[in-house]
Amino acid sequence: MDRRTFITKAGIGAGAAAAASTLAAPAIAQENEKISWRMTSSFPKSLDTIYGGGETIAKYVREATDGNFDIQVFAAGEIVPGLQAADAVASGTVEMCHTVPYYYVGKDVTYAMGAAIPFGLNARQTNAWHYYGGGIDLMNKFYATQGMVGFPAGNTGVQMGGWYRKEINTLEDLKGLKLRIAGLAGQIMSKLGVVPQQIAGGDIYPSLEKGVIDGAEWVGPYDDEKLGFVKVAPFYYYPGWWEGGPTVATFINKDKYDGLPAKYQSLLRTASQAANNDMLASYDYKNPQAIRRLVDQGAQLRAFSQEIMQASYDAAKEVYADVSSTNASFKEIYDNQLAFKKDAYLWAQLSEYTFDTFMMIQQRNGTL
Amino acid sequence: MDRRTFITKAGIGAGAAAAASTLAAPAIAQENEKISWRMTSSFPKSLDTIYGGGETIAKYVREATDGNFDIQVFAAGEIVPGLQAADAVASGTVEMCHTVPYYYVGKDVTYAMGAAIPFGLNARQTNAWHYYGGGIDLMNKFYATQGMVGFPAGNTGVQMGGWYRKEINTLEDLKGLKLRIAGLAGQIMSKLGVVPQQIAGGDIYPSLEKGVIDGAEWVGPYDDEKLGFVKVAPFYYYPGWWEGGPTVATFINKDKYDGLPAKYQSLLRTASQAANNDMLASYDYKNPQAIRRLVDQGAQLRAFSQEIMQASYDAAKEVYADVSSTNASFKEIYDNQLAFKKDAYLWAQLSEYTFDTFMMIQQRNGTL
Repeated sequence: MDRRTFITKAGIGAGAAAAASTLAAPAIAQENEKISWRMTSSFPKSLDTIYGGGETIAKYVREATDGNFDIQVFAAGEIVPGLQAADAVASGTVEMCHTVPYYYVGKDVTYAMGAAIPFGLNARQTNAWHYYGGGIDLMNKFYATQGMVGFPAGNTGVQMGGWYRKEINTLEDLKGLKLRIAGLAGQIMSKLGVVPQQIAGGDIYPSLEKGVIDGAEWVGPYDDEKLGFVKVAPFYYYPGWWEGGPTVATFINKDKYDGLPAKYQSLLRTASQAANNDMLASYDYKNPQAIRRLVDQGAQLRAFSQEIMQASYDAAKEVYADVSSTNASFKEIYDNQLAFKKDAYLWAQLSEYTFDTFMMIQQRNGTL
Repeated sequence: MDRRTFITKAGIGAGAAAAASTLAAPAIAQENEKISWRMTSSFPKSLDTIYGGGETIAKYVREATDGNFDIQVFAAGEIVPGLQAADAVASGTVEMCHTVPYYYVGKDVTYAMGAAIPFGLNARQTNAWHYYGGGIDLMNKFYATQGMVGFPAGNTGVQMGGWYRKEINTLEDLKGLKLRIAGLAGQIMSKLGVVPQQIAGGDIYPSLEKGVIDGAEWVGPYDDEKLGFVKVAPFYYYPGWWEGGPTVATFINKDKYDGLPAKYQSLLRTASQAANNDMLASYDYKNPQAIRRLVDQGAQLRAFSQEIMQASYDAAKEVYADVSSTNASFKEIYDNQLAFKKDAYLWAQLSEYTFDTFMMIQQRNGTL
């Protein structure tokens, strides 16, 4: 019942209503404070999946407060370049952003633990670790040192391994390969002779077309389709072992977050968790249809060979040992996650794996 | 800024404040209306995972409204028996419940589509279908005929196949087997000679101990451990093919929901979606540890044989054809979900499956 309804229903005249309303104030002072915030996204509007996650949070918050907590979402580049979203939050240029924590490994590799590390957890395990394994608290101990608060707010599921102009069969094929790939995955691949390239989304297509690069990883079928890679680099590899279930996050300026009413803090967390669920559902619905279309357009699906997978895995373990020896923050979080990972991949072999395997056999047999 | 802060900061005396507040009312009439609701859960408090989902929704809603939208959660049996939760909502005895839609297949088998059907979707696919494949809208078209509104609000992940006093290897072993199992799964199993038994949670243990039944399915490691089945029926089978990723739902009395302010309707949906994510994370974190403990306690892990899986699958298809021929509501929703399922299990074979498989091999090799 809003105040106007109360007044009307109670049949109180204007003067009496004013008095009643004043007297009642201490008990019913529960307005939703008017607050306007800006959220900068690391993604372009064309990616409705991942950019849409930021809009989802804003929508849920706006609706639950009758529009009083109003978060305006800006696409990458509108007010802040996509990969500087966290900096803009830390400095207070914007109150919050929607981004992938591993974009900031250049500042501190600990950021990667908030998103995904190569050969890490899958999407469900990532959520289990964040919400129940202490992940959110551990990451926020770190984010606090960066002047921010952060929460999971999206997941793409495991990504694809990228588009290549020719087949990649052996470790020899990786030597000198110019691949658009960043962060820890680039570091790992460089151990195998790959030459990692940093190229913005919009420049990938022409670079592949001209042969400036030999391959490029982006996200998965639905997002990749929009960039048209299939036309210039048709070999589409899987799995994207560097992103088993990357978390897209909200970063919020710590002072701004601490200054929010408790109810708005809670609502932001709840909306972020709901958006986390929503984005994964979006990808899981759209990717199956997109992969069919891509195959129709000429995509050649290829699995990375076991040789390449194993060498990459071994290189990843070396990188984690190196980083852990010099970065205590990374080590603390990595070790915590690893303990869970060992149990999680044991359990995953029982019901989930045998159920999925059986159903996939039915799919292959055409008996679904 | 709440009203008291505004008044204090503005330095306005009581009389002036009363006038200002009255004048401003049309623009700032944004109180969070005081509403008290009751939610009856189908689960006992001892199951912190699944019962906890109802508490999570109530907590998120309470926090986001400064306690003004207050939902009190009651465990099964406190005010309504666990399996009559939906009836209590439909009749208006309580405003809402937290339950599994398939509990009500006795009224209409269409309810099962809101939770899980045997050999259906896994948890992620279920969410994809609900939130992006039209599942929520289709189910609500049906729920409306039952006087309710419903939203996904939890998921257990694929369950285990139950506890058995002796090994079940062949179809012959199923003949005459007295198994505690309900709903569509019971109907399917009865085609294979199983004699389904309906037994409440608390009575399962003594029934197994005395040999009144030969086996019983419950949920998965973490919940099952609490009932102590390992001591009396140590053969623990997987997968629970009748529940690939069952959705736990909130049902809300339709008139009560329609009468809510729009902001509270939205908040209930958002809190339910966040709780959906939260419960799966809870299970995914707790089950891996529980399965280790159960094995230490003597659980003998066994996979259902392919012979049993395939015969069960074929029987399930027969049941769906039968039900579809007489229940148009079930058929419409089943057909819609089936179209997505065919694409989903094709896509799942690529990145997700190869990534998980590779990581499981590392787990087995002890190289995680």
